[in-house]
Amino acid sequence: MFINRVAHYIPDLVIPNAHFEKLNGLTNDWILERTGISERRRATEGENTNTMALEAVKKGIEAGLPYDISEINLIVGGTYSPYDTVGTLAHVIQAHIQVADIPVVSVSSACSTLLNCMEIVEGYFAMGKADKAIVVVSEHNSLYHNETDPMAGHLWGDGAAAFFISKEKQSETDFNVSQIITGGAATVGKGTEGVMLRPRDGGINMPFGKDVFINACAYMSKVTKDILENNGYSLNDLSYLVPHQANLRISKNITESLGLSENVALSNIEYLGNTGCAGAGIAFSEHQGEYKKGDKIVLVVFGGGYSYGAMLVEV
Amino acid sequence: MFINRVAHYIPDLVIPNAHFEKLNGLTNDWILERTGISERRRATEGENTNTMALEAVKKGIEAGLPYDISEINLIVGGTYSPYDTVGTLAHVIQAHIQVADIPVVSVSSACSTLLNCMEIVEGYFAMGKADKAIVVVSEHNSLYHNETDPMAGHLWGDGAAAFFISKEKQSETDFNVSQIITGGAATVGKGTEGVMLRPRDGGINMPFGKDVFINACAYMSKVTKDILENNGYSLNDLSYLVPHQANLRISKNITESLGLSENVALSNIEYLGNTGCAGAGIAFSEHQGEYKKGDKIVLVVFGGGYSYGAMLVEV
Repeated sequence: MFINRVAHYIPDLVIPNAHFEKLNGLTNDWILERTGISERRRATEGENTNTMALEAVKKGIEAGLPYDISEINLIVGGTYSPYDTVGTLAHVIQAHIQVADIPVVSVSSACSTLLNCMEIVEGYFAMGKADKAIVVVSEHNSLYHNETDPMAGHLWGDGAAAFFISKEKQSETDFNVSQIITGGAATVGKGTEGVMLRPRDGGINMPFGKDVFINACAYMSKVTKDILENNGYSLNDLSYLVPHQANLRISKNITESLGLSENVALSNIEYLGNTGCAGAGIAFSEHQGEYKKGDKIVLVVFGGGYSYGAMLVEV
Repeated sequence: MFINRVAHYIPDLVIPNAHFEKLNGLTNDWILERTGISERRRATEGENTNTMALEAVKKGIEAGLPYDISEINLIVGGTYSPYDTVGTLAHVIQAHIQVADIPVVSVSSACSTLLNCMEIVEGYFAMGKADKAIVVVSEHNSLYHNETDPMAGHLWGDGAAAFFISKEKQSETDFNVSQIITGGAATVGKGTEGVMLRPRDGGINMPFGKDVFINACAYMSKVTKDILENNGYSLNDLSYLVPHQANLRISKNITESLGLSENVALSNIEYLGNTGCAGAGIAFSEHQGEYKKGDKIVLVVFGGGYSYGAMLVEV
């Protein structure tokens, strides 16, 4: 399958590290050293996962698609920080594009959700039940975070990304999706309790940061290597690594352990914070003008649950 | 694909209509006449969508599967009333069965979610990425409802259902899934705002009950007819209709408009209330001992968003 267009939306409101020094005493240096984050964006009054998803999709449509929007026949939304679990972000997109009677579904596998959405699309394409899809991922972490929490309150940012995908190649600028791998990892470490978002029981919590760190590094390194090998490539062939934007130290650990140059890993955590399942999508979108013919790009994710995934994209 | 086993779990706590007479003045007669509901079950302290999903899966395993549980290679969970959007019900099932590195994802399309889950499984089977799956749907409406709401507080019940599904036939007692249809209907009526569950903005609300009623009847009737016709059957061939358990008047409207005998429609709303995306699954499970060789069964659903779907099962 092929990515025809990517777009993203980030809210205007900037929350610098200085905000936390006043709030709970965490200094800029302390946050920066441990996470790489200088500032993050926050949704404002009236914004939520549905509105941000819609903005990302609108930006994609405005940037131009190689087909009419009425040809979309599948919408898959992804979020773990939902505004509405019934009128979901995917339904809001259907209402916007006004295409009736197509499958519309929303998904959560925590910070891995983007690739679960992509793999669900791959399944619809394989069945012949769809051939052009929108995947939209959107996170409103600040709706559920406790910003005074010294463990994780400073990590979270808000934002959204939209992918327009087709079964067949639509234009010369399409990106080829060569393989998608996803996996649950609820069987290891702190598994289902390493990270939690319980809407009626404390919101987002990450009580086992070290366990998350260790497993994120291990799984994202392994699956990056696996997906390259599966497709006959080595680590030297990798042009860009687009990891889940959880923590700059995780990305650095992965590039170091794989022997990759630090520049290979794309990153936006410095100015967006951890935007959950939208982070890697936003990073892929931010750099879409830079990819060159022949580039091999791996999006690699890890999230609560635990969950992981990788997607090999060839330009 | 084939359904090898179905199971369900309902919590012990019974909430009779008399509860509401004390609470907000709605009488037993008033509720019964408008909804068909006499009583509903409610999750108790320590129960949630994850624990109820796990109980349903355990019951299925205990009842016997035609393969070892370690052969499961896909888990799809469904809920719009999540306990944890990160450590989801699907991840809890993976942790329980201890099968590593398989796709694990949770889904919401409101009360239609069961069939979206089934169609996602169909996609994984078509790709060859899985051949044995668990679909588990679980709702904890009482976590998000406002029980004093005279519009909808009396409707909601809690419960879960689990389906064990394989690509190839596993035993003579398997049910054959002949077709699955799903569709978003965000383009009609009150669409994304007809029903809402906004965890941080009021919980479950159904401000446009009449619009929901009209569209539920129209879509469930149409898609039931469509799926039978698609497969060369007429309405006379239908052995059982298993509608989403929203309101007994909706089910009666559908059987009437299709000219079906009222007995064809299976129902549990009288004693379980509206158990969301679990309702039709629980009903299908409750009656699994009654289906005879050659029976044609249609599960048909409609939910907020809006969303709809139908599944034709042949015994």
